Amino acid sequence: MVEFLIRKCAQIARYVPGKSVEEVKRRYGLKKVIKLASNENPYGPSPRAVEAFRSYSDLHIYPDPEYRELREKIAEYTGWSYDRIVVAAGVDGILETLFRLLVDEGDEIVIPTPTFPYYHILTRLHCGREVLVKRSDDGYRVDESIFDAISGKTKLVIICSPNNPTGNVESAKLVRELAESTGGVVFLDEAYVEFADRSIDVDADNVIVARTFSKAFGLANLRIGYALLPEWLVELFKAASTPFPISTPAERAAIAALEDIEWMFGCVEKIRAERERIYRELQRFVEVNPSQANFLFFKSPIENLAEELMKRGVIVRDCSNFVGCDRHIRVSIGKPEENDMFLDALKEVLG
Amino acid sequence: MVEFLIRKCAQIARYVPGKSVEEVKRRYGLKKVIKLASNENPYGPSPRAVEAFRSYSDLHIYPDPEYRELREKIAEYTGWSYDRIVVAAGVDGILETLFRLLVDEGDEIVIPTPTFPYYHILTRLHCGREVLVKRSDDGYRVDESIFDAISGKTKLVIICSPNNPTGNVESAKLVRELAESTGGVVFLDEAYVEFADRSIDVDADNVIVARTFSKAFGLANLRIGYALLPEWLVELFKAASTPFPISTPAERAAIAALEDIEWMFGCVEKIRAERERIYRELQRFVEVNPSQANFLFFKSPIENLAEELMKRGVIVRDCSNFVGCDRHIRVSIGKPEENDMFLDALKEVLG
Repeated sequence: MVEFLIRKCAQIARYVPGKSVEEVKRRYGLKKVIKLASNENPYGPSPRAVEAFRSYSDLHIYPDPEYRELREKIAEYTGWSYDRIVVAAGVDGILETLFRLLVDEGDEIVIPTPTFPYYHILTRLHCGREVLVKRSDDGYRVDESIFDAISGKTKLVIICSPNNPTGNVESAKLVRELAESTGGVVFLDEAYVEFADRSIDVDADNVIVARTFSKAFGLANLRIGYALLPEWLVELFKAASTPFPISTPAERAAIAALEDIEWMFGCVEKIRAERERIYRELQRFVEVNPSQANFLFFKSPIENLAEELMKRGVIVRDCSNFVGCDRHIRVSIGKPEENDMFLDALKEVLG
Repeated sequence: MVEFLIRKCAQIARYVPGKSVEEVKRRYGLKKVIKLASNENPYGPSPRAVEAFRSYSDLHIYPDPEYRELREKIAEYTGWSYDRIVVAAGVDGILETLFRLLVDEGDEIVIPTPTFPYYHILTRLHCGREVLVKRSDDGYRVDESIFDAISGKTKLVIICSPNNPTGNVESAKLVRELAESTGGVVFLDEAYVEFADRSIDVDADNVIVARTFSKAFGLANLRIGYALLPEWLVELFKAASTPFPISTPAERAAIAALEDIEWMFGCVEKIRAERERIYRELQRFVEVNPSQANFLFFKSPIENLAEELMKRGVIVRDCSNFVGCDRHIRVSIGKPEENDMFLDALKEVLG
């Protein structure tokens, strides 16, 4: 029955999220396990966000689908135009609606690799054709070769900056030139932008910028993403979106998080300091890429490093299911004591 | 730019949710406004569900994507097989993933009308072809004519029972015969089943049953839906689903709601009693259909009844954007005092 019913063009591969702490405790009989695999903010959200989340009690009433107050606060925070801001269940939700709206069978999606696996999954699921572009050997930058990948069939060019998992940022110049070179849309995923030295400030009629409250704002569990869309796309996007992508308590939490922006900046400062410390330490053992995000990316000298670390209570991200990331590891920056536990385990395995 | 980029086959119409109380207060300068337009449970969820929702504080950690405990509790509640239960952001989320997975350009979706507008929206958005079947004049039942609508191109047959907005239930016999008659899938939407005298208990390799915590359980804001899938579809569905459709606090709330099932039964009992009272009252003014859900459906003798009621502080659902529902109104069953306010306003307008 399957063969007949599933879309013939779709290729379906499941997203593999990081293993949970409970799973690893069970599997290896460990008491203390830490997870540095999902790029979560170890300090959590602003206490005011938690408070706002808890104080909403009308759980039986549907959310207001306009999300006015949240979009106003996002406009203030980003400097973006209120009318062009949309919200969704994470950057994933933004992407899902865009693929649904834009991607026809055979449309080409240009994806610099390695990058976030969900781009590949969505492309295949929506019957698009992946055009993969290998990043340069110089710090995983997207280089000039991407322009050769653009064709008349290009529907989306996906730029992740800072890039997951390599941690490097791209330039506004690149994004501007890509936007000028394609008749399609440039999708700029800035999920990790708060950890970087710069954001990419390009506003064009075919550029979409997406961000999230899941990372620096510490609200991963609630899945709150947002995007700046070109004007012509706004009403179409809203029409193609699920009607109520964000619950009201989640909206309240995001609003409160923006009202206590100092908390987020404080988290980012601590995480960046730790990122530099771990980067220096890691350099003694492995080749590691400098990072503008809340994680570090390196090639393991041994085959099964992620598993060896897991046996020692440290869950990192084994990137072997990312395109072109054989033997690579991505480790999220945790609290200092967590990062020490990771370094100790690493030294034990590699030392 | 739009013309080139949007999927050529997609037709995009926005879902029109009910107006909010705040909007109506602003528009008509009213102090007291009630909303009987979105089929919400006026008593709200079990206090234990609210408590469970609030007690979860790890908002910075991604949810566990397996939702084991919730699926176990759903299995207990429904009697369904655990392995075949999936969860999503409402019945909407179940449908979105199914459409993404199953619907190719030109696939036929059989939809008895009038019914829930989102089926039409998804069909057009995914480039399916709607095959509309008018319900019988006898209580809006789906009659034998639906079998003529099934063809070799049928991908989905959508049966809503109790049906939104007409309130009638269908029979297991109908669903069984539909499943036998089509090479596609029968999608049975039982969002309102807790308010009905019976559920449709058909288990076949091409039948999907979807339900929700949004209605009888009073958790509409959190968007928690679930479905029983045929075995062959389970892994495909999970792969095509968004990775984390439900937040952990929402999952906890749903689990607690199932652990306090008496609360839900109590709400349903009160709502059903009120439904019968309002049904009898309404019969004095309009032709109203008997209902097995938490709403009533009737044809208005005047053009602008919904607006006239709104001016008097009562928001009902104007069904004019439902297929074949010109001048029809759907009113949700609220608390007795809310229902009285609706009846008083109705008498004032029609009396």
